[in-house]
Amino acid sequence: MKNVMNSDENSRKALYVIKIGGNIIDDELKLGTFLTDFAAIRGKKILVHGGGKLADRLADKLGIPQQMIEGRRITNSETLKVITMVYGGYINKNIVAQLQSNSCNAIGISGADANSLLARKRIHSSIDYGFAGDVENSRFNIKAWQLFLENDLIPVVCPITHDGKGQLLNTNADTIAQEISKGLSTSYTVHLIYTFEKSGVLLNVNDDTSVIKKMNAESYRGLKDKQQIFAGMIPKLDNAFAALATGVHKVIIGNAEKLNALVAGNSGTCIENE
Amino acid sequence: MKNVMNSDENSRKALYVIKIGGNIIDDELKLGTFLTDFAAIRGKKILVHGGGKLADRLADKLGIPQQMIEGRRITNSETLKVITMVYGGYINKNIVAQLQSNSCNAIGISGADANSLLARKRIHSSIDYGFAGDVENSRFNIKAWQLFLENDLIPVVCPITHDGKGQLLNTNADTIAQEISKGLSTSYTVHLIYTFEKSGVLLNVNDDTSVIKKMNAESYRGLKDKQQIFAGMIPKLDNAFAALATGVHKVIIGNAEKLNALVAGNSGTCIENE
Repeated sequence: MKNVMNSDENSRKALYVIKIGGNIIDDELKLGTFLTDFAAIRGKKILVHGGGKLADRLADKLGIPQQMIEGRRITNSETLKVITMVYGGYINKNIVAQLQSNSCNAIGISGADANSLLARKRIHSSIDYGFAGDVENSRFNIKAWQLFLENDLIPVVCPITHDGKGQLLNTNADTIAQEISKGLSTSYTVHLIYTFEKSGVLLNVNDDTSVIKKMNAESYRGLKDKQQIFAGMIPKLDNAFAALATGVHKVIIGNAEKLNALVAGNSGTCIENE
Repeated sequence: MKNVMNSDENSRKALYVIKIGGNIIDDELKLGTFLTDFAAIRGKKILVHGGGKLADRLADKLGIPQQMIEGRRITNSETLKVITMVYGGYINKNIVAQLQSNSCNAIGISGADANSLLARKRIHSSIDYGFAGDVENSRFNIKAWQLFLENDLIPVVCPITHDGKGQLLNTNADTIAQEISKGLSTSYTVHLIYTFEKSGVLLNVNDDTSVIKKMNAESYRGLKDKQQIFAGMIPKLDNAFAALATGVHKVIIGNAEKLNALVAGNSGTCIENE
Protein backbone atom coordinates (compact mmCIF):
# COMPACT_ATOMS: atom_id res chain seq x y z
CA MET A 1 0.00 0.00 0.00
CA LYS A 2 2.79 2.40 0.95
CA ASN A 3 4.57 1.65 -2.32
CA VAL A 4 1.48 2.44 -4.32
CA MET A 5 1.11 5.76 -2.55
CA ASN A 6 4.76 6.56 -3.09
CA SER A 7 4.55 5.73 -6.74
CA ASP A 8 1.45 7.87 -7.02
CA GLU A 9 3.33 10.75 -5.37
CA ASN A 10 6.32 10.19 -7.64
CA SER A 11 4.26 10.02 -10.81
CA ARG A 12 2.55 13.31 -10.08
CA LYS A 13 4.12 16.34 -11.66
CA ALA A 14 5.88 18.92 -9.55
CA LEU A 15 4.32 22.38 -9.58
CA TYR A 16 6.13 25.48 -8.34
CA VAL A 17 3.87 28.24 -7.02
CA ILE A 18 6.11 31.25 -6.50
CA LYS A 19 5.18 34.51 -4.86
CA ILE A 20 7.10 37.75 -5.29
CA GLY A 21 6.49 40.77 -3.15
CA GLY A 22 6.76 44.49 -3.45
CA ASN A 23 10.47 45.01 -2.85
CA ILE A 24 11.52 43.24 -6.00
CA ILE A 25 8.68 44.64 -8.11
CA ASP A 26 9.85 48.15 -7.27
CA ASP A 27 13.39 47.38 -8.48
CA GLU A 28 13.46 47.13 -12.28
CA LEU A 29 16.88 45.51 -12.46
CA LYS A 30 16.23 42.90 -9.77
CA LEU A 31 12.81 42.15 -11.24
CA GLY A 32 14.40 41.53 -14.65
CA THR A 33 16.88 39.06 -13.16
CA PHE A 34 14.14 37.37 -11.15
CA LEU A 35 11.98 36.91 -14.26
CA THR A 36 14.90 35.46 -16.21
CA ASP A 37 15.44 32.99 -13.34
CA PHE A 38 11.72 32.22 -13.19
CA ALA A 39 11.60 31.57 -16.95
CA ALA A 40 14.46 29.08 -16.56
CA ILE A 41 12.60 26.87 -14.07
CA ARG A 42 11.70 23.63 -15.82
CA GLY A 43 8.25 22.15 -15.44
CA LYS A 44 4.92 23.51 -14.26
CA LYS A 45 4.94 26.87 -12.52
CA ILE A 46 2.75 29.76 -11.45
CA LEU A 47 3.85 33.26 -10.46
CA VAL A 48 1.82 35.29 -7.96
CA HIS A 49 2.77 38.93 -7.57
CA GLY A 50 2.00 41.60 -5.02
CA GLY A 51 1.99 45.27 -5.69
CA GLY A 52 4.90 47.18 -4.28
CA LYS A 53 4.78 50.89 -3.76
CA LEU A 54 3.35 51.72 -7.18
CA ALA A 55 -0.26 51.57 -6.00
CA ASP A 56 0.52 53.82 -3.03
CA ARG A 57 2.31 56.25 -5.31
CA LEU A 58 -0.58 56.40 -7.77
CA ALA A 59 -3.14 56.78 -4.98
CA ASP A 60 -1.05 59.60 -3.57
CA LYS A 61 -0.87 61.40 -6.93
CA LEU A 62 -4.63 61.04 -7.33
CA GLY A 63 -5.27 62.29 -3.80
CA ILE A 64 -6.82 59.02 -2.58
CA PRO A 65 -5.77 58.50 1.06
CA GLN A 66 -4.69 54.94 1.88
CA GLN A 67 -5.54 53.30 5.18
CA MET A 68 -3.95 50.09 6.48
CA ILE A 69 -5.25 48.12 9.46
CA GLU A 70 -3.12 45.22 10.73
CA GLY A 71 -1.21 45.14 7.45
CA ARG A 72 -4.41 44.97 5.38
CA ARG A 73 -5.38 47.71 2.99
CA ILE A 74 -8.83 49.20 3.49
CA THR A 75 -10.20 49.00 -0.02
CA ASN A 76 -12.81 51.61 -0.81
CA SER A 77 -14.04 51.85 -4.40
CA GLU A 78 -11.42 54.43 -5.42
CA THR A 79 -8.64 52.31 -3.95
CA LEU A 80 -9.98 49.21 -5.69
CA LYS A 81 -9.79 51.13 -8.96
CA VAL A 82 -6.14 52.03 -8.28
CA ILE A 83 -5.33 48.41 -7.40
CA THR A 84 -7.07 47.08 -10.49
CA MET A 85 -5.13 49.53 -12.65
CA VAL A 86 -1.73 48.98 -11.04
CA TYR A 87 -1.79 45.28 -10.07
CA GLY A 88 -4.15 43.97 -12.76
CA GLY A 89 -2.88 46.24 -15.52
CA TYR A 90 0.54 47.83 -15.26
CA ILE A 91 2.47 45.30 -13.16
CA ASN A 92 0.75 42.19 -14.48
CA LYS A 93 1.07 43.01 -18.19
CA ASN A 94 4.67 44.15 -17.88
CA ILE A 95 5.67 40.95 -16.10
CA VAL A 96 3.90 38.91 -18.78
CA ALA A 97 5.65 40.79 -21.60
CA GLN A 98 9.04 40.33 -19.93
CA LEU A 99 8.44 36.61 -19.41
CA GLN A 100 7.38 36.26 -23.05
CA SER A 101 10.70 37.84 -24.06
CA ASN A 102 12.35 35.03 -22.07
CA SER A 103 10.44 32.37 -24.06
CA CYS A 104 8.13 31.74 -21.12
CA ASN A 105 4.54 31.49 -22.36
CA ALA A 106 2.97 33.58 -19.59
CA ILE A 107 -0.67 34.53 -19.28
CA GLY A 108 -1.71 37.24 -16.84
CA ILE A 109 -4.83 36.55 -14.84
CA SER A 110 -6.90 37.85 -11.98
CA GLY A 111 -9.36 35.64 -10.15
CA ALA A 112 -12.12 36.89 -12.44
CA ASP A 113 -10.35 35.61 -15.56
CA ALA A 114 -11.60 32.15 -16.46
CA ASN A 115 -13.37 32.33 -13.07
CA SER A 116 -10.13 31.08 -11.56
CA LEU A 117 -10.54 32.42 -7.99
CA LEU A 118 -13.86 33.13 -6.36
CA ALA A 119 -13.90 35.12 -3.14
CA ARG A 120 -16.34 36.47 -0.60
CA LYS A 121 -16.31 40.12 0.49
CA ARG A 122 -14.80 40.18 3.95
CA ILE A 123 -17.30 40.80 6.71
CA HIS A 124 -15.77 41.85 10.02
CA SER A 125 -17.60 42.70 13.23
CA SER A 126 -15.86 46.03 13.77
CA ILE A 127 -13.68 46.87 10.73
CA ASP A 128 -15.04 47.71 7.30
CA TYR A 129 -12.34 46.38 4.97
CA GLY A 130 -14.27 47.57 1.94
CA PHE A 131 -13.74 45.53 -1.22
CA ALA A 132 -11.41 42.98 0.37
CA GLY A 133 -12.04 39.36 -0.58
CA ASP A 134 -11.40 36.04 1.14
CA VAL A 135 -10.94 33.15 -1.28
CA GLU A 136 -13.66 30.52 -1.15
CA ASN A 137 -11.60 27.38 -1.42
CA SER A 138 -14.66 25.14 -1.59
CA ARG A 139 -15.30 26.74 -4.99
CA PHE A 140 -11.74 26.38 -6.30
CA ASN A 141 -11.95 26.08 -10.08
CA ILE A 142 -9.36 23.38 -10.65
CA LYS A 143 -10.37 22.93 -14.30
CA ALA A 144 -9.33 26.48 -15.19
CA TRP A 145 -5.89 26.02 -13.64
CA GLN A 146 -5.37 22.60 -15.20
CA LEU A 147 -6.29 23.98 -18.60
CA PHE A 148 -3.49 26.55 -18.33
CA LEU A 149 -0.91 24.22 -16.83
CA GLU A 150 -1.59 21.23 -19.08
CA ASN A 151 -1.30 23.47 -22.14
CA ASP A 152 2.03 24.87 -20.98
CA LEU A 153 0.72 28.32 -20.20
CA ILE A 154 2.35 29.93 -17.18
CA PRO A 155 -0.20 31.84 -15.08
CA VAL A 156 0.96 35.19 -13.72
CA VAL A 157 -1.57 36.00 -11.03
CA CYS A 158 -2.35 39.46 -9.68
CA PRO A 159 -3.87 39.80 -6.21
CA ILE A 160 -7.42 40.47 -7.39
CA THR A 161 -10.35 38.07 -7.10
CA HIS A 162 -14.08 38.37 -7.81
CA ASP A 163 -17.33 37.39 -6.12
CA GLY A 164 -19.03 35.92 -9.19
CA LYS A 165 -21.61 38.70 -9.08
CA GLY A 166 -19.58 41.27 -10.99
CA GLN A 167 -17.55 42.66 -8.10
CA LEU A 168 -13.75 42.61 -8.14
CA LEU A 169 -12.09 42.19 -4.74
CA ASN A 170 -8.65 42.93 -3.35
CA THR A 171 -7.03 39.78 -1.93
CA ASN A 172 -3.65 39.45 -0.24
CA ALA A 173 -1.07 37.91 -2.61
CA ASP A 174 0.38 35.55 0.04
CA THR A 175 -3.11 34.17 0.57
CA ILE A 176 -3.69 33.78 -3.16
CA ALA A 177 -0.46 31.79 -3.52
CA GLN A 178 -1.52 29.59 -0.63
CA GLU A 179 -5.06 29.01 -1.92
CA ILE A 180 -3.82 28.10 -5.40
CA SER A 181 -1.27 25.73 -3.86
CA LYS A 182 -3.91 24.05 -1.73
CA GLY A 183 -6.37 23.76 -4.58
CA LEU A 184 -3.83 22.20 -6.91
CA SER A 185 -2.23 19.85 -4.39
CA THR A 186 -4.77 17.16 -5.28
CA SER A 187 -3.27 17.02 -8.80
CA TYR A 188 0.34 18.13 -8.44
CA THR A 189 3.21 17.87 -5.97
CA VAL A 190 3.14 21.52 -5.01
CA HIS A 191 6.22 23.46 -3.92
CA LEU A 192 5.04 26.80 -2.57
CA ILE A 193 7.87 29.33 -2.60
CA TYR A 194 7.54 32.66 -0.80
CA THR A 195 10.29 35.04 -1.83
CA PHE A 196 11.20 38.20 0.03
CA GLU A 197 14.30 40.29 0.76
CA LYS A 198 15.80 38.01 3.41
CA SER A 199 17.56 34.68 2.92
CA GLY A 200 14.93 32.70 4.81
CA VAL A 201 13.53 32.37 8.32
CA LEU A 202 16.32 33.73 10.51
CA LEU A 203 17.32 32.79 14.06
CA ASN A 204 18.72 36.30 14.40
CA VAL A 205 16.74 38.80 12.41
CA ASN A 206 19.83 41.00 12.00
CA ASP A 207 22.02 38.21 10.71
CA ASP A 208 21.15 37.06 7.18
CA THR A 209 23.41 34.00 7.58
CA SER A 210 21.37 32.63 10.51
CA VAL A 211 18.88 30.89 8.21
CA ILE A 212 16.96 27.97 9.67
CA LYS A 213 17.39 25.48 6.84
CA LYS A 214 14.68 23.01 7.74
CA MET A 215 11.60 23.24 9.85
CA ASN A 216 8.75 20.90 10.71
CA ALA A 217 5.78 21.37 13.02
CA GLU A 218 7.71 20.08 16.01
CA SER A 219 10.84 22.19 15.57
CA TYR A 220 8.63 25.24 14.84
CA ARG A 221 6.80 24.76 18.15
CA GLY A 222 10.14 24.53 19.94
CA LEU A 223 11.47 27.70 18.33
CA LYS A 224 8.24 29.56 19.05
CA ASP A 225 8.29 28.44 22.68
CA LYS A 226 11.85 29.75 23.05
CA GLN A 227 10.75 32.98 21.25
CA GLN A 228 13.43 32.45 18.62
CA ILE A 229 11.10 33.29 15.74
CA PHE A 230 10.75 36.96 14.80
CA ALA A 231 7.13 37.95 15.50
CA GLY A 232 6.62 39.28 11.96
CA MET A 233 7.34 35.82 10.54
CA ILE A 234 4.77 34.00 12.66
CA PRO A 235 1.67 34.65 10.48
CA LYS A 236 3.67 33.58 7.39
CA LEU A 237 4.84 30.40 9.11
CA ASP A 238 1.41 29.60 10.51
CA ASN A 239 0.13 29.90 6.94
CA ALA A 240 2.93 27.66 5.70
CA PHE A 241 1.99 24.91 8.14
CA ALA A 242 -1.68 25.36 7.31
CA ALA A 243 -0.75 24.84 3.65
CA LEU A 244 1.14 21.63 4.48
CA ALA A 245 -1.88 20.38 6.43
CA THR A 246 -4.01 20.72 3.28
CA GLY A 247 -1.70 18.71 1.07
CA VAL A 248 0.99 21.14 -0.12
CA HIS A 249 4.24 19.17 -0.40
CA LYS A 250 6.78 21.80 0.72
CA VAL A 251 6.86 25.47 1.58
CA ILE A 252 10.12 27.31 0.92
CA ILE A 253 10.83 30.81 2.18
CA GLY A 254 13.84 32.69 0.88
CA ASN A 255 15.46 35.50 -1.05
CA ALA A 256 13.96 36.44 -4.43
CA GLU A 257 17.48 37.02 -5.72
CA LYS A 258 18.29 33.33 -5.21
CA LEU A 259 15.26 31.85 -6.94
CA ASN A 260 17.05 29.04 -8.75
CA ALA A 261 18.80 27.97 -5.52
CA LEU A 262 15.44 28.03 -3.71
CA VAL A 263 13.93 25.77 -6.37
CA ALA A 264 16.94 23.44 -6.21
CA GLY A 265 16.67 23.25 -2.41
CA ASN A 266 20.04 24.94 -1.86
CA SER A 267 18.81 28.11 -0.20
CA GLY A 268 16.10 29.41 2.11
CA THR A 269 14.05 27.71 4.79
CA CYS A 270 12.34 24.51 3.75
CA ILE A 271 9.18 23.67 5.65
CA GLU A 272 7.78 20.18 5.33
CA ASN A 273 5.90 17.60 7.30
CA GLU A 274 8.87 15.31 7.75
CA MET B 1 -16.55 21.06 -56.12
CA LYS B 2 -18.83 23.92 -55.11
CA ASN B 3 -20.86 21.57 -52.91
CA VAL B 4 -17.77 20.36 -51.14
CA MET B 5 -16.69 23.92 -50.45
CA ASN B 6 -20.16 24.81 -49.23
CA SER B 7 -20.24 21.83 -46.94
CA ASP B 8 -16.82 22.79 -45.60
CA GLU B 9 -18.09 26.32 -44.99
CA ASN B 10 -21.24 25.00 -43.33
CA SER B 11 -19.40 22.58 -41.07
CA ARG B 12 -17.11 25.28 -39.78
CA LYS B 13 -18.22 26.95 -36.59
CA ALA B 14 -19.37 30.53 -36.60
CA LEU B 15 -17.24 32.93 -34.59
CA TYR B 16 -18.41 36.41 -33.59
CA VAL B 17 -15.64 38.97 -33.11
CA ILE B 18 -17.28 42.00 -31.57
CA LYS B 19 -15.71 45.38 -30.98
CA ILE B 20 -17.06 47.98 -28.56
CA GLY B 21 -15.82 51.52 -28.49
CA GLY B 22 -15.46 54.28 -25.98
CA ASN B 23 -18.99 55.69 -25.94
CA ILE B 24 -20.50 52.59 -24.44
CA ILE B 25 -17.59 51.92 -22.09
CA ASP B 26 -18.09 55.37 -20.55
CA ASP B 27 -21.77 54.65 -19.84
CA GLU B 28 -22.08 52.18 -16.97
CA LEU B 29 -25.74 51.39 -17.59
CA LYS B 30 -25.40 50.87 -21.35
CA LEU B 31 -22.25 48.80 -20.83
CA GLY B 32 -24.12 46.55 -18.41
CA THR B 33 -26.91 45.94 -20.94
CA PHE B 34 -24.38 45.37 -23.72
CA LEU B 35 -22.53 42.76 -21.65
CA THR B 36 -25.77 40.95 -20.80
CA ASP B 37 -26.55 40.84 -24.53
CA PHE B 38 -23.02 39.70 -25.34
CA ALA B 39 -23.22 36.92 -22.74
CA ALA B 40 -26.44 35.70 -24.38
CA ILE B 41 -24.87 35.15 -27.82
CA ARG B 42 -24.65 31.43 -28.43
CA GLY B 43 -21.48 29.90 -29.82
CA LYS B 44 -17.91 31.09 -30.15
CA LYS B 45 -17.24 34.76 -29.51
CA ILE B 46 -14.53 37.29 -28.73
CA LEU B 47 -14.95 40.80 -27.35
CA VAL B 48 -12.46 43.54 -28.24
CA HIS B 49 -12.73 46.77 -26.31
CA GLY B 50 -11.37 50.26 -26.77
CA GLY B 51 -10.77 52.71 -24.02
CA GLY B 52 -13.20 55.55 -23.83
CA LYS B 53 -12.42 58.74 -22.02
CA LEU B 54 -11.08 57.07 -18.88
CA ALA B 55 -7.49 57.05 -20.12
CA ASP B 56 -7.70 60.73 -21.09
CA ARG B 57 -9.16 61.57 -17.71
CA LEU B 58 -6.45 59.69 -15.81
CA ALA B 59 -3.70 61.22 -17.96
CA ASP B 60 -5.19 64.63 -17.27
CA LYS B 61 -5.25 64.04 -13.50
CA LEU B 62 -1.64 62.87 -13.61
CA GLY B 63 -0.59 65.85 -15.72
CA ILE B 64 0.44 63.78 -18.74
CA PRO B 65 -0.45 65.76 -21.89
CA GLN B 66 -2.09 63.66 -24.62
CA GLN B 67 -1.34 64.23 -28.28
CA MET B 68 -3.39 62.80 -31.16
CA ILE B 69 -2.26 62.83 -34.79
CA GLU B 70 -4.78 61.71 -37.42
CA GLY B 71 -6.87 59.99 -34.76
CA ARG B 72 -3.89 58.06 -33.40
CA ARG B 73 -2.59 58.58 -29.89
CA ILE B 74 1.07 59.45 -29.60
CA THR B 75 2.19 56.93 -27.00
CA ASN B 76 5.16 58.05 -24.95
CA SER B 77 6.20 55.86 -22.03
CA GLU B 78 4.02 57.70 -19.51
CA THR B 79 0.99 57.43 -21.81
CA LEU B 80 1.68 53.72 -22.36
CA LYS B 81 1.64 53.29 -18.58
CA VAL B 82 -1.75 55.02 -18.38
CA ILE B 83 -3.13 52.88 -21.21
CA THR B 84 -1.83 49.68 -19.65
CA MET B 85 -3.45 50.61 -16.34
CA VAL B 86 -6.79 51.74 -17.75
CA TYR B 87 -7.31 49.43 -20.75
CA GLY B 88 -5.37 46.38 -19.55
CA GLY B 89 -6.38 46.73 -15.90
CA TYR B 90 -9.45 48.70 -14.96
CA ILE B 91 -11.67 48.32 -18.04
CA ASN B 92 -10.60 44.81 -18.96
CA LYS B 93 -10.97 43.26 -15.49
CA ASN B 94 -14.30 44.97 -14.84
CA ILE B 95 -15.73 43.71 -18.13
CA VAL B 96 -14.50 40.20 -17.34
CA ALA B 97 -16.07 40.27 -13.84
CA GLN B 98 -19.38 41.50 -15.26
CA LEU B 99 -19.40 38.81 -17.95
CA GLN B 100 -18.64 36.16 -15.32
CA SER B 101 -21.68 37.35 -13.37
CA ASN B 102 -23.67 36.64 -16.56
CA SER B 103 -22.37 33.05 -16.68
CA CYS B 104 -20.03 33.93 -19.54
CA ASN B 105 -16.63 32.37 -18.93
CA ALA B 106 -14.57 35.39 -19.95
CA ILE B 107 -10.80 35.70 -19.84
CA GLY B 108 -9.15 39.10 -20.20
CA ILE B 109 -6.11 39.22 -22.40
CA SER B 110 -3.67 41.60 -24.00
CA GLY B 111 -1.53 40.55 -26.95
CA ALA B 112 1.27 39.68 -24.52
CA ASP B 113 -0.88 37.12 -22.72
CA ALA B 114 -0.30 33.66 -24.16
CA ASN B 115 1.67 35.53 -26.84
CA SER B 116 -1.64 36.04 -28.63
CA LEU B 117 -0.80 39.16 -30.68
CA LEU B 118 2.68 40.12 -31.74
CA ALA B 119 3.26 43.60 -33.11
CA ARG B 120 6.04 45.78 -34.46
CA LYS B 121 6.71 49.27 -33.11
CA ARG B 122 5.42 51.66 -35.75
CA ILE B 123 8.15 53.39 -37.72
CA HIS B 124 7.01 56.46 -39.65
CA SER B 125 9.13 58.73 -41.81
CA SER B 126 8.03 61.95 -40.10
CA ILE B 127 5.86 61.15 -37.05
CA ASP B 128 7.15 59.50 -33.89
CA TYR B 129 4.13 57.53 -32.69
CA GLY B 130 6.07 56.31 -29.66
CA PHE B 131 5.01 52.90 -28.35
CA ALA B 132 2.36 52.27 -31.01
CA GLY B 133 2.30 48.78 -32.48
CA ASP B 134 1.21 47.33 -35.81
CA VAL B 135 0.10 43.70 -35.58
CA GLU B 136 2.34 41.26 -37.43
CA ASN B 137 -0.25 39.00 -39.01
CA SER B 138 2.35 36.63 -40.39
CA ARG B 139 3.09 35.72 -36.76
CA PHE B 140 -0.58 35.27 -35.73
CA ASN B 141 -0.62 32.71 -32.92
CA ILE B 142 -3.69 30.72 -33.94
CA LYS B 143 -2.98 28.00 -31.36
CA ALA B 144 -3.43 30.41 -28.45
CA TRP B 145 -6.80 31.57 -29.76
CA GLN B 146 -8.00 28.06 -30.55
CA LEU B 147 -7.06 26.92 -27.06
CA PHE B 148 -9.35 29.57 -25.57
CA LEU B 149 -12.20 29.09 -28.02
CA GLU B 150 -12.19 25.31 -28.08
CA ASN B 151 -12.25 25.25 -24.27
CA ASP B 152 -15.23 27.62 -24.15
CA LEU B 153 -13.28 30.53 -22.77
CA ILE B 154 -14.44 33.90 -24.10
CA PRO B 155 -11.48 36.21 -24.78
CA VAL B 156 -11.96 39.84 -23.77
CA VAL B 157 -9.18 41.66 -25.56
CA CYS B 158 -7.73 45.03 -24.61
CA PRO B 159 -5.98 47.13 -27.26
CA ILE B 160 -2.44 46.32 -26.12
CA THR B 161 0.04 44.13 -27.97
CA HIS B 162 3.72 43.30 -27.44
CA ASP B 163 6.84 42.99 -29.56
CA GLY B 164 8.07 39.69 -28.10
CA LYS B 165 11.10 41.50 -26.67
CA GLY B 166 9.45 42.69 -23.48
CA GLN B 167 7.86 45.87 -24.82
CA LEU B 168 4.11 46.46 -24.59
CA LEU B 169 2.60 48.46 -27.45
CA ASN B 170 -0.58 50.46 -27.91
CA THR B 171 -2.63 49.14 -30.85
CA ASN B 172 -5.92 50.48 -32.20
CA ALA B 173 -8.85 48.30 -31.08
CA ASP B 174 -10.53 48.31 -34.53
CA THR B 175 -7.30 46.95 -36.00
CA ILE B 176 -7.01 44.31 -33.30
CA ALA B 177 -10.56 43.10 -34.01
CA GLN B 178 -9.72 42.94 -37.71
CA GLU B 179 -6.44 41.09 -37.24
CA ILE B 180 -8.01 38.50 -34.93
CA SER B 181 -10.84 38.02 -37.45
CA LYS B 182 -8.40 37.55 -40.31
CA GLY B 183 -6.21 35.19 -38.36
CA LEU B 184 -9.11 32.99 -37.29
CA SER B 185 -10.94 32.96 -40.63
CA THR B 186 -8.96 29.89 -41.69
CA SER B 187 -10.67 27.92 -38.89
CA TYR B 188 -14.01 29.63 -38.30
CA THR B 189 -16.74 31.41 -40.24
CA VAL B 190 -15.96 34.82 -38.82
CA HIS B 191 -18.59 37.51 -38.31
CA LEU B 192 -16.77 40.74 -37.45
CA ILE B 193 -19.12 43.18 -35.73
CA TYR B 194 -18.11 46.79 -35.17
CA THR B 195 -20.46 48.50 -32.76
CA PHE B 196 -20.71 52.23 -32.25
CA GLU B 197 -23.32 54.84 -31.37
CA LYS B 198 -25.05 54.93 -34.79
CA SER B 199 -27.37 52.35 -36.29
CA GLY B 200 -25.04 51.50 -39.16
CA VAL B 201 -23.51 53.13 -42.21
CA LEU B 202 -25.87 56.00 -42.97
CA LEU B 203 -26.79 57.59 -46.29
CA ASN B 204 -27.53 60.76 -44.36
CA VAL B 205 -25.26 61.17 -41.37
CA ASN B 206 -27.93 63.16 -39.53
CA ASP B 207 -30.67 60.58 -40.07
CA ASP B 208 -30.24 57.42 -38.02
CA THR B 209 -32.95 55.67 -40.04
CA SER B 210 -31.01 56.02 -43.32
CA VAL B 211 -29.01 52.84 -42.68
CA ILE B 212 -27.55 51.13 -45.73
CA LYS B 213 -28.59 47.56 -44.98
CA LYS B 214 -26.28 45.71 -47.33
CA MET B 215 -23.10 46.62 -49.06
CA ASN B 216 -20.65 44.84 -51.32
CA ALA B 217 -17.51 46.07 -53.04
CA GLU B 218 -19.46 47.22 -56.11
CA SER B 219 -22.18 49.15 -54.27
CA TYR B 220 -19.52 50.68 -51.98
CA ARG B 221 -17.59 51.98 -55.01
CA GLY B 222 -20.82 53.48 -56.38
CA LEU B 223 -21.66 55.22 -53.09
CA LYS B 224 -18.13 56.51 -52.73
CA ASP B 225 -18.14 57.85 -56.29
CA LYS B 226 -21.36 59.72 -55.57
CA GLN B 227 -19.85 60.95 -52.26
CA GLN B 228 -22.75 59.42 -50.35
CA ILE B 229 -20.49 57.94 -47.68
CA PHE B 230 -19.57 60.13 -44.71
CA ALA B 231 -15.80 60.71 -44.91
CA GLY B 232 -15.28 59.50 -41.33
CA MET B 233 -16.67 56.07 -42.25
CA ILE B 234 -14.34 55.50 -45.20
CA PRO B 235 -11.32 54.15 -43.24
CA LYS B 236 -13.66 51.80 -41.32
CA LEU B 237 -15.26 50.57 -44.55
CA ASP B 238 -11.93 50.19 -46.34
CA ASN B 239 -10.85 48.03 -43.41
CA ALA B 240 -14.07 46.04 -43.61
CA PHE B 241 -13.47 45.21 -47.27
CA ALA B 242 -9.83 44.42 -46.56
CA ALA B 243 -11.06 41.96 -43.91
CA LEU B 244 -13.44 40.31 -46.40
CA ALA B 245 -10.58 39.98 -48.88
CA THR B 246 -8.61 37.97 -46.31
CA GLY B 247 -11.36 35.47 -45.61
CA VAL B 248 -13.63 37.11 -43.06
CA HIS B 249 -17.19 35.96 -43.82
CA LYS B 250 -19.16 39.13 -42.97
CA VAL B 251 -18.56 42.52 -41.43
CA ILE B 252 -21.48 44.12 -39.61
CA ILE B 253 -21.49 47.73 -38.46
CA GLY B 254 -24.21 48.93 -36.10
CA ASN B 255 -25.43 50.21 -32.78
CA ALA B 256 -23.98 48.66 -29.62
CA GLU B 257 -27.42 48.94 -28.02
CA LYS B 258 -28.82 46.52 -30.61
CA LEU B 259 -26.21 43.80 -30.32
CA ASN B 260 -28.56 40.83 -30.47
CA ALA B 261 -30.27 42.24 -33.57
CA LEU B 262 -26.86 42.80 -35.19
CA VAL B 263 -25.91 39.19 -34.52
CA ALA B 264 -29.27 37.99 -35.88
CA GLY B 265 -28.82 40.09 -39.04
CA ASN B 266 -31.80 42.33 -38.25
CA SER B 267 -29.95 45.59 -37.71
CA GLY B 268 -26.91 47.51 -38.92
CA THR B 269 -25.04 47.45 -42.20
CA CYS B 270 -23.97 44.04 -43.40
CA ILE B 271 -20.91 44.00 -45.63
CA GLU B 272 -20.15 40.85 -47.56
CA ASN B 273 -18.65 39.68 -50.79
CA GLU B 274 -21.93 38.56 -52.30
